[in-house]
Amino acid sequence: MSKPLILVVNDDGVTAPGIRALVEAMAGLGDVLVVAPDSPQSGMGHAITLSKPLRLTQVHHFGEVQAYQCSGTPVDCVKLAVDKVLHRKPDLCVSGINHGSNSSINIIYSGTMSAAMEASLEGIPSVGFSLCDYKHEADFTAAAYYARIVAQSILKDGLPENTLLNVNIPKGKVEELKGLKISRQAKAKWEEEYIQREDPFGRPYYWLTGKFVNHDEGTDTDEWALANGYVSVVPVQHDLTAHKAINFIKEKWRVNVHEDAQDGQVPNQSKEDFSF
Amino acid sequence: MSKPLILVVNDDGVTAPGIRALVEAMAGLGDVLVVAPDSPQSGMGHAITLSKPLRLTQVHHFGEVQAYQCSGTPVDCVKLAVDKVLHRKPDLCVSGINHGSNSSINIIYSGTMSAAMEASLEGIPSVGFSLCDYKHEADFTAAAYYARIVAQSILKDGLPENTLLNVNIPKGKVEELKGLKISRQAKAKWEEEYIQREDPFGRPYYWLTGKFVNHDEGTDTDEWALANGYVSVVPVQHDLTAHKAINFIKEKWRVNVHEDAQDGQVPNQSKEDFSF
Repeated sequence: MSKPLILVVNDDGVTAPGIRALVEAMAGLGDVLVVAPDSPQSGMGHAITLSKPLRLTQVHHFGEVQAYQCSGTPVDCVKLAVDKVLHRKPDLCVSGINHGSNSSINIIYSGTMSAAMEASLEGIPSVGFSLCDYKHEADFTAAAYYARIVAQSILKDGLPENTLLNVNIPKGKVEELKGLKISRQAKAKWEEEYIQREDPFGRPYYWLTGKFVNHDEGTDTDEWALANGYVSVVPVQHDLTAHKAINFIKEKWRVNVHEDAQDGQVPNQSKEDFSF
Repeated sequence: MSKPLILVVNDDGVTAPGIRALVEAMAGLGDVLVVAPDSPQSGMGHAITLSKPLRLTQVHHFGEVQAYQCSGTPVDCVKLAVDKVLHRKPDLCVSGINHGSNSSINIIYSGTMSAAMEASLEGIPSVGFSLCDYKHEADFTAAAYYARIVAQSILKDGLPENTLLNVNIPKGKVEELKGLKISRQAKAKWEEEYIQREDPFGRPYYWLTGKFVNHDEGTDTDEWALANGYVSVVPVQHDLTAHKAINFIKEKWRVNVHEDAQDGQVPNQSKEDFSF
């Protein structure tokens, strides 16, 4: 049986300590290949590069492990890796280890998690790892330990269809953490507070800062797990439909809502413009 | 009673015809304010600007309507509008009208929909509008007609908590369209095909192109609605948890999964680093 092929990506860039820790954690689990951004891409969400071409350059940061840096976003890295480097689907995509938490609503801003999401959209079992310590010199030992356990579990048992994982690891030593806890995304948000400054020419500019606020009192959330010393594991889906709201809107709106239309055909659409 | 306050944003930039059509569609529904990117931001997803400061400049593209251009992403526009321009939550945020479809999985790459999502995260009832015609010179008449109907409905009836709307309008005249259809997000994806070229110095570069493929045969999807002449309306949520997968993973994994832990406290976390 051939070895599993493991794609490693991140959003902090190819030289970040977190991706090195993740590559090392995958050692022996399969053939590892790295495609990561050539510069930090935190907060890039699911951005893709449409208006300019991308560069892809081989680098030698990881000893024997084949590695490339890409001039695009984390999502671009996954797309390019699959189409131009691997020429096939890997068996697993691991993203991270991010410098900083991607729990709860952070998932939506996260380049780390968007890369994992993109891999999952490609049909690749995938998982993003984040350490709740944003410092460059953070200790990734426990995060790497759990990344290996989770990767092994996915390679062995797979994941449900259209599902990826968001794994966050608290600060602390391996022996201090309490283990994995399967959780749901907490209902939390950022309250932004822009800092206004003036440039030397008297014109204002704004720095984004903010405060993370968790209003969710559930004990089954990722925030609860992390605050109580567990590694949080949230299964994540691609379907953003608020299914429960469909009937509310159907009933509430007085506009002409056509129900159970039978006069059409299922579309087999194929279009080629990128125009989101 | 004071007039509703309506924030208009987009991702195609403040000079795009689609946002002009949307501003005109809101006329008379409330006090309208525009904050939009100073350049096209298609495909930016939920990106935010962390590593550089933002500029915000008043512009006079919309007659009497107060308007600003912002140097950041669509999500930055919403955050800056709320914190630094309005100093309060608007009653409605409308995003678009996008030049090109944001149906099915396109929502995840879309700056238009991410701006609407950010507004919703801020507690603002919000909706993104997209016309299934990506051309600059597209006819926005029917899209604007439906944008007004939907905006009126939201102002009158509200939206369920933590829910926004993704509205896509097919090409065609008002009288050719069949009305609104409340739908779910189709299971569809992009299959990327990078075009490789060489620069004058012999080095390769890659342009992202791709093909949209809909594998979903349901007649309750947004793709079905659009292919059959309806305006699709998909209610969208912020919670990405794959709730049904939680039990699968709990049962499948042999690792130490702690259940029903009772030994911790609900976190009231507040942290201040942006480190996604």
